[in-house]
Amino acid sequence: MMSQFPVTARNRVRRLPKRGHYDREIVHAIIDEALVCHVAFSMEGVPTVIPTLHARRGDSLLLHGSSKSRLLRHVGEGHPVSVAMTILDGIVLARSVFHHSMNYRSVVIHGTGQLLASEDDKRSALEAFAEHIAGGRWADARKPSRKELKATTVVSIPIDLAAAKIRTGPPLDEDEDYALPIWAGVLPLSLKAGKPEADPRLGRDIEVPPYIRRYRRGGS
Amino acid sequence: MMSQFPVTARNRVRRLPKRGHYDREIVHAIIDEALVCHVAFSMEGVPTVIPTLHARRGDSLLLHGSSKSRLLRHVGEGHPVSVAMTILDGIVLARSVFHHSMNYRSVVIHGTGQLLASEDDKRSALEAFAEHIAGGRWADARKPSRKELKATTVVSIPIDLAAAKIRTGPPLDEDEDYALPIWAGVLPLSLKAGKPEADPRLGRDIEVPPYIRRYRRGGS
Repeated sequence: MMSQFPVTARNRVRRLPKRGHYDREIVHAIIDEALVCHVAFSMEGVPTVIPTLHARRGDSLLLHGSSKSRLLRHVGEGHPVSVAMTILDGIVLARSVFHHSMNYRSVVIHGTGQLLASEDDKRSALEAFAEHIAGGRWADARKPSRKELKATTVVSIPIDLAAAKIRTGPPLDEDEDYALPIWAGVLPLSLKAGKPEADPRLGRDIEVPPYIRRYRRGGS
Repeated sequence: MMSQFPVTARNRVRRLPKRGHYDREIVHAIIDEALVCHVAFSMEGVPTVIPTLHARRGDSLLLHGSSKSRLLRHVGEGHPVSVAMTILDGIVLARSVFHHSMNYRSVVIHGTGQLLASEDDKRSALEAFAEHIAGGRWADARKPSRKELKATTVVSIPIDLAAAKIRTGPPLDEDEDYALPIWAGVLPLSLKAGKPEADPRLGRDIEVPPYIRRYRRGGS
């Protein structure tokens, strides 16, 4: 059974509500596949949006950065925040310009954040970030020192006022347009990994680990 | 000569300022390559971020949607808005967890929008959107009708309070970590187009147009 988020004025999908999903598993899967998120905050009524990395730990979204980060300080003070991530799956080429669209999976999360206080908690968060970027990396890499943990700020935002929005499938054209001699369909898109580029300062006998050699994002 | 945006409290890159760029050409190139943007607005101090398509027309960023869109109405009323787009170029695998990063090119634009009023202006905006998605598409597709133009809202935001942020190159580790037997380097990422999928309702004799068959995003 999938568990559902409550649907409120805050997270209800307003435009094209049929594309809205409030299932925890669907939302978590999109968060886990997306490599980057966009965080919005408001200061004196003025909105700012910033791209940053994220990770998920259970029912919480984690954001991290320098302890000097203005964004993290602001979120850590309990101000409302909105976070979105979008995975592009294809360009939807309709016969009419008007019905062009994208196939995508997106999540928007609303909430307030809390600073992680303890070193253990921050270390476990950094593990989530390393594993989010590349599953298997935490075991390989040099773990954070106490000094590095001190220099890192992590905020945790509960994933509950959240919604996914998903479009799949072919274009939807006006009935009378289907007879037009215009190619229509979907051009699939996906984020692909290329050939790993070793650091120029890397020792020659160190091989690319399997989780990097076979890296892929998403299920399919 | 590249023209530079003024650097103000609003668009100055605060974290890692060395990654900041204020050149018009650099900012425009990132806007043009990115397929999706994230728009933040603030209502009664509460921020919301929403993914949407964009296009550029000269020095203006265009957003479009239904005339019922809450976001577009809000932006059209002249409230401040912040828009970001991010292109991921690679995962930066450092020896230490702490120095993991991404190679990316992002833009953040701050400003206020204006609704496009005339039909001609909206038609030209929809041309920009079609061409932004796939260069060559406008000439092929069925052009918007007057009814469709009426149902479409477009806002235009000047691209001047803007900045790009770019990271390239290998990981930067602590001096003492370079001797560790840990693979380090960059795993390049890019958004790739797959095989075009014809609409099931497409006539059999309609061929995939060359600009879709040879589709690629970005310069390299």
